Amino acid sequence: MTKKILLVICDGLGDRPVPELGGKTPLQAARTPNIDGFAAKSMHGLLYTIAPGITPGSDTSHLSLLGYDPGGIYTGRGPFEAAGIGISMNPGDVAFRCNFATVDGRRIVVDRRAGRIGEPETGRLSSLLPSAVIDGANVTFRESTEHRCVVVIRGKGLGSNVTDTDPGVTGKEILKARGLDDSSARTAEILNQFTDMAIKTFSGSEVNRDRVSRGLPAANAILARGGGIFPHVENFLKKHGMTFGAVAAEGLIIGICRVLGGEVVTPPGATANMNTDLLSKGRAAVELLGRKDFVLIHVKPTDIAGHDGNSGGKVDIIQRVDEMIGEIMSSFKEELVFAITGDHSTPVTAKEHTCDPVPLLIYSRHLRGDGIAHFDEISAGRGSLSSMRGLELMTLLKGYADRNEKYGA
Amino acid sequence: MTKKILLVICDGLGDRPVPELGGKTPLQAARTPNIDGFAAKSMHGLLYTIAPGITPGSDTSHLSLLGYDPGGIYTGRGPFEAAGIGISMNPGDVAFRCNFATVDGRRIVVDRRAGRIGEPETGRLSSLLPSAVIDGANVTFRESTEHRCVVVIRGKGLGSNVTDTDPGVTGKEILKARGLDDSSARTAEILNQFTDMAIKTFSGSEVNRDRVSRGLPAANAILARGGGIFPHVENFLKKHGMTFGAVAAEGLIIGICRVLGGEVVTPPGATANMNTDLLSKGRAAVELLGRKDFVLIHVKPTDIAGHDGNSGGKVDIIQRVDEMIGEIMSSFKEELVFAITGDHSTPVTAKEHTCDPVPLLIYSRHLRGDGIAHFDEISAGRGSLSSMRGLELMTLLKGYADRNEKYGA
Repeated sequence: MTKKILLVICDGLGDRPVPELGGKTPLQAARTPNIDGFAAKSMHGLLYTIAPGITPGSDTSHLSLLGYDPGGIYTGRGPFEAAGIGISMNPGDVAFRCNFATVDGRRIVVDRRAGRIGEPETGRLSSLLPSAVIDGANVTFRESTEHRCVVVIRGKGLGSNVTDTDPGVTGKEILKARGLDDSSARTAEILNQFTDMAIKTFSGSEVNRDRVSRGLPAANAILARGGGIFPHVENFLKKHGMTFGAVAAEGLIIGICRVLGGEVVTPPGATANMNTDLLSKGRAAVELLGRKDFVLIHVKPTDIAGHDGNSGGKVDIIQRVDEMIGEIMSSFKEELVFAITGDHSTPVTAKEHTCDPVPLLIYSRHLRGDGIAHFDEISAGRGSLSSMRGLELMTLLKGYADRNEKYGA
Repeated sequence: MTKKILLVICDGLGDRPVPELGGKTPLQAARTPNIDGFAAKSMHGLLYTIAPGITPGSDTSHLSLLGYDPGGIYTGRGPFEAAGIGISMNPGDVAFRCNFATVDGRRIVVDRRAGRIGEPETGRLSSLLPSAVIDGANVTFRESTEHRCVVVIRGKGLGSNVTDTDPGVTGKEILKARGLDDSSARTAEILNQFTDMAIKTFSGSEVNRDRVSRGLPAANAILARGGGIFPHVENFLKKHGMTFGAVAAEGLIIGICRVLGGEVVTPPGATANMNTDLLSKGRAAVELLGRKDFVLIHVKPTDIAGHDGNSGGKVDIIQRVDEMIGEIMSSFKEELVFAITGDHSTPVTAKEHTCDPVPLLIYSRHLRGDGIAHFDEISAGRGSLSSMRGLELMTLLKGYADRNEKYGA
C-alpha cells in the first residue's frame, strides 16, 4: 500500500568539525532524542545534492532534491523569487531579483540596500511604477521582502543570458546590463531602460523626500541580478504521481514549490529567520499530510547560523528541528516514509556554501535499519545508502513509499 | 580562499591479499606513520579510475584522474609516448610507439628488443633516418628510452585505426600494418613503407656491424604498436583554472602531462625504476607547489613491484612514499588539499593490471575526517567517499580547494 512521504530539508545543514564544539559538527553536538529514537532503524548516507565537488545554491539543490534536473530548467534565481512573491509567470518570461538601492547623482552606488528599506515604503515606491511597456515588451515591477524587489519582462524573443546591473559593492556605478546573445541583448536593453525609468521615478518620489528629511538614504535606484527565464516544468503531480504540499517561509523556496505546482503553507510564526516557530511548522505539516501525498518542510535558519559562523545557534536550531519531528511523529499516526537531509553544507567555519555532501536519513517502519544511532555527517558516511546524488532521492523515497511501478515482470 | 592541490598517484598501487604478507595487501602491511598521522582526519574511498570491472591502462587512467574523459581523446598510447620524448605534435598527427628489434633475412623476429639496446647506439641509428616523406606525408623517427623509439606521421587525412606490426612474440614475421578504415589504410601503408626503409637503412649500418662483431643482436628493424592520433585537448589551465606542474620520470606520464600543458620536472635521481629517489621527487614537488596551483607526483615502482610479483619490494616502495609525504608535509607550510591514490591495481599475485578499484585518501585541514586510521584498500572501502569514478576526482579536489564556481544561488 502506498505511503505518504515527509521530507525535511534543513538549509545549509551539512557542516565540518568545529573547534568550539570540541571538533564535532553541530549535528554531532546536538541532542536529538527524537531522531535518535528511530535512527538505528533508519538508513543513512551522504548526499551530493548536485555532484561531488560542486557547491550547490539553494535553488539548484532544491530542484534536484525534488527530482528536477536543474541543468534543464535553471537559468537564474529570478523566476523563482518572482514566483515566491506571487507574480504569475509564463514560460519565456524573464525575471530578475533586485534590490532597492541608493545612488548618487552620477549613479554611483552608495548603499546596496537603501538603508535596509522595507514595507510599507517599498510598496509605495513600486506602486509608482508597477508596469511599463518598453520595446513592445511588458515589464512588471513588484516589491518583495525587506529591501528586495522583482522585475519581470514578458514578450516575444527574450533571453536570460543577461549580466547583472548590481556591481556587488558600493562606490561603483550601476552596471549596464549586457546580453550575451541576440535575444538577451534586447532583454538587457529593456532592463537598462527600466532601470533609468526607476531612477527617474523614485528620485522625485515623496517616499524618498520623506526618507531624506529623516536622514535616511533614498531608495532611488534598483540593482538587478540573477536573471533567469521562466522554464517549462512538468507539474509535480504529473511527474511524480503525488499531490505536493510544502511548509516554507523563504521566498525562494516558496517560489520553487509554487513553480512545480505545490501548495505552500506559511503558518503563523514561521519565518526565514532564527526566530521561526518550528512547532507551528510541524503542526502545519501534519495538517498538510492529511491531504497531500508528499510534504516538504523547509527549515531556513540552519543556513543562517552557518553563514553567521554561529555554531551554538546551529546546534540550537537542530535541537528545535528534533522537537518538531518528535511532535510530528507523535501526532501523525499513518505509516509514512520520513527523510531528513540538507540542500547543501554551510559550515560555521566557512560561513558560506561548500561542496561537502549532506547527511541523509530515511526511516519507515519495517524497512532495514543500518544500526547507526545518531544522525550526523560523520556517522552517515558509514551508512547503508553510502553516497548518492540529489536527483536520485525522489525515486528512492517513492520506491520505499511503494509509489514506483515495477520495471519488468 | 583557494588552496593548492597535491595529488600523488602511485602507479599500480592497488593490490589483493598476499599470502606471504599474512593475507594483507602491501598497503596494509606497510608502516606509514606519516600518512597515519592525518589518516583519521581524512576522507577515504575506493576509486574506479575508469569504471567498475574495467582494467585501466596507465594512460587512460591518468587522463581520467586529471579530468579528461579518455573516451573522447584516447586512441592509442603512441602520441603520449612521443610527447614524452619531446616530439612536438599537432592534432591529427599519428604516432606509434616502437621497439628496435632484431629480425633474420626473412623478417622473422629473433629479439623483440635487439638485446635491450640503448643509448648512444639508438641515437646513432635514428640519426641515419630521422625523417622521410612517404606518399606526401612527413614521417619523423626518434629514439626514446632504452630499446624504444617513436614514429610520428604528419599529413592530411590520416587515421590511427592501424594494427600493430609487432607480432608480440619471437619466431614470427613482422606483421604488415593494416588500416581498419580508409584514412587508416593509407597510414598503415606509410608505416609499412617506413618499416621497410628502416630495415634497409639499419641493416647496413656501422652500429650493427659493430654490434654483430661483438656478438650482439643487430638492431635491424622496428616493431610498431599503440598507434594513436594526437588529440585536440583543452589545456589544463583553461579547463581547470589552475596552473599544472608534475614530478614524473616515466615517458608515458611525462607525455600525458605535457600534452595537457603541464610543466614536468624530473629531478636528479628520479627514475621510473625501483631505484628512484623519492625524497628528491618530494623536494621537487615542494618547489613546484611554490609556483603552481596543482601538482602531480607520479610514482612508478609500485607498479613494477606488482608486475614482478615482488610483495616485499612493493611494501618497501610504499614506505618510501610515506617518507616522501612526511617530508613534503613538514616543508610546505601553506594549507593544501592533499590526495593519494593509484591509477589502477597491479596485484603482486596477478603480476598485471586488474580491475580492482584503488584506495583514495583526501586530506585538508578543517575538512571532515571519517576516522579511518590507516590508508589501504580494505579500510578505504569503509570510508565516507564510498566508491567514486576517476573522472569525478578533479571536480571533488577542486571543490575542496574552493576552486569550483557555485552552481545556483
